[in-house]
Amino acid sequence: MTQTPTAAARRWLAGLDDALQRRDVDAALEFFEDDSYWRDFVAFTWNLKTLEGKADIRHMLEATLERVQPANWALAEDATGDGENVEAWITFETGAARGYGHLRLRNGKCWTLLTTMQELKGFEEKKGPRREQGVAHEIVRGRRSWKELKEEHEARLGYEEQPYCVIIGGGQGGIGLAARLKRLGVPTIIVEKNQNPGDSWRNRYKSLHLHDPVWYDHLPYLKFPDDWPVFAAKDKIGDWLEHYTRIMELNYWSGTECVKAAYDDGTQEWEVSVLRNGEPVTLRPKQLIFALGVSGYPNIPKFDGAETFLGEQRHSSQHPGGGDWTGKKAVVIGSNNSAHDICADLWEHGADVTMVQRSSTHIARSESLMDLALGDLYSERALAAGVTTEKADLLFASLPMRILPEAQVPVYQEMAKRDAEFYSQLEAAGFDLDFGVDGSGLFVKYLRRGSGYYIDVGASQLIIDGRVKLKSGQVAKITGNAVVMDDGTELEADLIVYATGYGSMNGWLADLVSPEIADRVGKCWGYGSDTPKDPGPWEGELRNMWKPTNVPNLWIHGGNLHQSRHYSAYLALQLKARMEGLETSVYELQASHHTR
Amino acid sequence: MTQTPTAAARRWLAGLDDALQRRDVDAALEFFEDDSYWRDFVAFTWNLKTLEGKADIRHMLEATLERVQPANWALAEDATGDGENVEAWITFETGAARGYGHLRLRNGKCWTLLTTMQELKGFEEKKGPRREQGVAHEIVRGRRSWKELKEEHEARLGYEEQPYCVIIGGGQGGIGLAARLKRLGVPTIIVEKNQNPGDSWRNRYKSLHLHDPVWYDHLPYLKFPDDWPVFAAKDKIGDWLEHYTRIMELNYWSGTECVKAAYDDGTQEWEVSVLRNGEPVTLRPKQLIFALGVSGYPNIPKFDGAETFLGEQRHSSQHPGGGDWTGKKAVVIGSNNSAHDICADLWEHGADVTMVQRSSTHIARSESLMDLALGDLYSERALAAGVTTEKADLLFASLPMRILPEAQVPVYQEMAKRDAEFYSQLEAAGFDLDFGVDGSGLFVKYLRRGSGYYIDVGASQLIIDGRVKLKSGQVAKITGNAVVMDDGTELEADLIVYATGYGSMNGWLADLVSPEIADRVGKCWGYGSDTPKDPGPWEGELRNMWKPTNVPNLWIHGGNLHQSRHYSAYLALQLKARMEGLETSVYELQASHHTR
Repeated sequence: MTQTPTAAARRWLAGLDDALQRRDVDAALEFFEDDSYWRDFVAFTWNLKTLEGKADIRHMLEATLERVQPANWALAEDATGDGENVEAWITFETGAARGYGHLRLRNGKCWTLLTTMQELKGFEEKKGPRREQGVAHEIVRGRRSWKELKEEHEARLGYEEQPYCVIIGGGQGGIGLAARLKRLGVPTIIVEKNQNPGDSWRNRYKSLHLHDPVWYDHLPYLKFPDDWPVFAAKDKIGDWLEHYTRIMELNYWSGTECVKAAYDDGTQEWEVSVLRNGEPVTLRPKQLIFALGVSGYPNIPKFDGAETFLGEQRHSSQHPGGGDWTGKKAVVIGSNNSAHDICADLWEHGADVTMVQRSSTHIARSESLMDLALGDLYSERALAAGVTTEKADLLFASLPMRILPEAQVPVYQEMAKRDAEFYSQLEAAGFDLDFGVDGSGLFVKYLRRGSGYYIDVGASQLIIDGRVKLKSGQVAKITGNAVVMDDGTELEADLIVYATGYGSMNGWLADLVSPEIADRVGKCWGYGSDTPKDPGPWEGELRNMWKPTNVPNLWIHGGNLHQSRHYSAYLALQLKARMEGLETSVYELQASHHTR
Repeated sequence: MTQTPTAAARRWLAGLDDALQRRDVDAALEFFEDDSYWRDFVAFTWNLKTLEGKADIRHMLEATLERVQPANWALAEDATGDGENVEAWITFETGAARGYGHLRLRNGKCWTLLTTMQELKGFEEKKGPRREQGVAHEIVRGRRSWKELKEEHEARLGYEEQPYCVIIGGGQGGIGLAARLKRLGVPTIIVEKNQNPGDSWRNRYKSLHLHDPVWYDHLPYLKFPDDWPVFAAKDKIGDWLEHYTRIMELNYWSGTECVKAAYDDGTQEWEVSVLRNGEPVTLRPKQLIFALGVSGYPNIPKFDGAETFLGEQRHSSQHPGGGDWTGKKAVVIGSNNSAHDICADLWEHGADVTMVQRSSTHIARSESLMDLALGDLYSERALAAGVTTEKADLLFASLPMRILPEAQVPVYQEMAKRDAEFYSQLEAAGFDLDFGVDGSGLFVKYLRRGSGYYIDVGASQLIIDGRVKLKSGQVAKITGNAVVMDDGTELEADLIVYATGYGSMNGWLADLVSPEIADRVGKCWGYGSDTPKDPGPWEGELRNMWKPTNVPNLWIHGGNLHQSRHYSAYLALQLKARMEGLETSVYELQASHHTR
């Protein structure tokens, strides 16, 4: 007799619960397929970890079960699926926390399980029914107003009173994390060199819009109003980040540069030297978080003769956009997102533009990417089907790195079919296309290397039409007025833009802490897929992001708006647990295999 | 055989729909009790109107049916209730609009029906699935960035280009209405004399917190984050209003005073003279909206000798709060909300304070009011039961003025019981209590007269304890250093605060437009209940608020945060319809019975 998906999921949960309650790992493993995956965000491992197959799962359970005390596995809502395949949203508890997760069953056994920590017992956010009264309905002399208390706290923090956390970097990453820490009562200062929250967006080139759609980009706790455009302009996002920072009442030290950070083993504190509007201040937090975006320092290849170039040359991150380039020649080296955006910007403003493509690039038309790759998770269609942004985040995470690429391949096969004419026009224009080494497309490429693609928002048509010229090959050298290619072609230039990407995020650590610490932490991003720019060995989770690193009390946060939103939740809980002195044994702290 | 509430409601709706489709008013009336109420917000009447009994309903239907073309009556969700009483959320359409409403059946016939306009067909807000793309994915030369377009529009509006609406007053009322108009594409300028949005809150006395709870106070489109306290401090609200104004991208002319407004019959435009940061500008909108709060000018009774007083004297609206009043004597004339708050504030800051109570006052302890009067509509409990803020607004509106008081009486009977000791302590202290002339309590008093009560947030205890002294009676005169009561008591004073309320809102019109226009509009607020400060004849809806007045193209908006939020929706639709030249015949424009 067939059971409903809900009954099947319930039976599975009851069985697992029972086995785990009895601390019977053998029995628990009976509920998993041989080819199964358990991905855990903090709940069991105090780490971000994917366990692949029964042996991994056994090892983790044997190491953690006694301590974690999982219990109360239950359905969060009715399961879906058919007789064979079941999907379910689940809740569970551990001794320390409440969890939420996602389960896929195949023929009654687990194929994928995602467990995430949602809140620490006894340290819940004061929201909804737990919200504060805001005022005591008793008049007492000497009470301070909300404003006075806020101003006093702001004046004290970092001087008479030390924050528990210092976050270096006040972009979307630092802000979102600080908002979560604020809710958890973790005293935090954000250090940001720009004058205003949002400036890191405002300072980019004029035509920049988000390439990701609005549903993908929400910050924690305060969603964009429902009339926000699908793709917001950079200044609109900048303004939003500024409002958000103030609405969340974050301790945001703008105009503040971090000069140096060193860990004091004696006091078990960081010594973080900053210049706050030019004034030196030393902060002494217990935890230091680097939230400097998705990448490290601008990467400019050393081309012979670059120093002899008589025109302007700059990295893409320095390109302001706009201006009048009529009658001027520009060469943009690179063929990823920034390269395309800057070529379009320069063409718009009158320049004669050439793009230099040095290696193949994955192009996805924005419309197709939104529909095929994101539509089921982040769209009005998804919302209408009950897939909130929060659920979408978990669904995306529910497919571990090992199986994500194969799940993505059909999406990009469909894209290649749908946009066949577009791709053949690009190829006819000489553009060297790829869909990733295994055809898994844009998001996997982003996770592996954070580069190698362009979400087409119009520049590809300029290349197809020849309005932006294309030159393939390697740069041989640079002269006073030209970029010279290895085939001898001279590309005359008044402006050279190096859209040549960025180094690894631990580059920041080398300067701000020390090269030794940077090497001990090791390369950030990538998961050891052994594909271009993401060397093995296999790690299965993104390197060093949002989880303990090999340097105690040093954390890396960052990524796009989606990642900043979702993973800040787990990082904030890890920090809160440490502040409260909870038991936080990290299961299998990952080794560092690559220095940069 | 009993039917389910859903089946009963469905049958009723189908029957009404059929009768209305056939334009058969007799048949339609069969679906109503003799003692029934149909309250309509804009959908049928282009007015806010309550029809009481079958004769009223017949008259309205006969006047509007042909034009309104109602159709597609349906349940919005399953109905609730028992065999006798049924409640249902409903949807319907008219020729011009989509509507939403609420229905109560008793034994199969309608007792109360609320119909509200939600959106105009063809002029829907660009939200959710209708949201804009934000960027065209085609590169064209000369395109402007979001920021450039916004700045150009701001520079133009009010100078080269005239707004359709000018809103005088940029507090919660003006801001919320402007946000709705912005969404509807109605060019609007808000004129506000303060330097920043939110200043009207920031400028009040230091200890002020909202007396209404957070669920009651949301603005349109962007809810307070879920960790907001139940009662927010005035500066926190001030900051929120400022962020809201900028997030909603409103055309907010701060530092701008309205000097004069006159209607030009020739051009069919208002001529609104303003000083924008001192510079004279003339605005020429088609529609002029006054949104100057809940009240008119400060009301200061003329007491003999007031001009001879040697200390400080001020209206409550001018009381800054804070400071050091140690060793000083203060007399606060009045016993409503502001009087209590200011007595507490002065006591907190060291003053010897006497409250002068001139007439009985309704006191409701905040905790009891939240639980008994608001708990089913605006609370975590309500939210958990599916009563969103939007639904609560409609539920509150679903009981017409004629029956609201009797529905409220039991709430306050329960309050009197629950807080019996508190009330007897207050009476023992000499405080003259009431619960409204008919025992209907605070909200009805607010609707009738906007005064006569205090939501106790602690000051009553000061009076019970005698820490704030109480003197009942009338003021006979004021001397150089005292308030002299009619029983001869002299209350020595270094400070007199007149917490004596405000005039009617049309007082603003007398100054800014003309006394004749003010009189033609007539008194604002109150619904003709023939109770103290709300003279008859019966009107059944609040005078002049959010609906057409006797002066074409002149509108009054205002109220607390709840009213500003809810009713701005209907006012915005009325304005939008006029801008688009839709048919907007007003059913039974109300006569004006009282000049101030």
